[in-house]
Amino acid sequence: MNWLDKVRWDKEGLVPAIAQEASTGDVLMFAWMNREALALTAERMQAVYWSRSRNKLWAKGEESGHVQQVHEIRLDCDQDVVLLKITQLGHEPGIACHTGRHSCFYERLEDGEWKSVDPVLKDPASIYK
Amino acid sequence: MNWLDKVRWDKEGLVPAIAQEASTGDVLMFAWMNREALALTAERMQAVYWSRSRNKLWAKGEESGHVQQVHEIRLDCDQDVVLLKITQLGHEPGIACHTGRHSCFYERLEDGEWKSVDPVLKDPASIYK
Repeated sequence: MNWLDKVRWDKEGLVPAIAQEASTGDVLMFAWMNREALALTAERMQAVYWSRSRNKLWAKGEESGHVQQVHEIRLDCDQDVVLLKITQLGHEPGIACHTGRHSCFYERLEDGEWKSVDPVLKDPASIYK
Repeated sequence: MNWLDKVRWDKEGLVPAIAQEASTGDVLMFAWMNREALALTAERMQAVYWSRSRNKLWAKGEESGHVQQVHEIRLDCDQDVVLLKITQLGHEPGIACHTGRHSCFYERLEDGEWKSVDPVLKDPASIYK
């Protein structure tokens, strides 16, 4: 049985994928994968996602240069969520977020409001030319 | 505007939620929340999810005693994924997974196969009596 067959794809043929920085443990982003994206991720050991908004494969870093080198691919107990342990390439410290931040999870709930608490490391206009 | 209105709930009224151990950075589990679950999580500062299989609110630890104390609630750049920074209570080291393991992400892809690489810390039969 192919390892891809063990994954429980949802009715749209996708699984959620979490990208975690291997060196720091920081959760950098969350995206989706279809079967081809996960197969390519394992083959290249670079993260490839499925863009639900653009409806196509999305090799992370293809425009920004912020490629994610994959060290480990993990699957959860229900076989329906993937966890990648990665190194975020292209900038030091790594930039995973399209806003130019390290992590996409930069808003924190404080006193009943979402506050942006992490700095922009690079102007997005200079990332996406 | 209420902070809950800023969350982009999917068409089923849910958002994915990632639980990360604050002390170690380990990603422990992935689950879903509806509006009420997220509101209760923030009110109690203990994780409450929405069980899609049981179709009801699920206060994590209600059966197992493995409650998740919440330190931070974060939202991603698309406002459609929640990240909780938690302490996994009820056992030392913490057990988040219903299999009795620390993390739900205990299967790792190795040579084209999913291998279970993390130990069972407690017999599930003694967790769920």
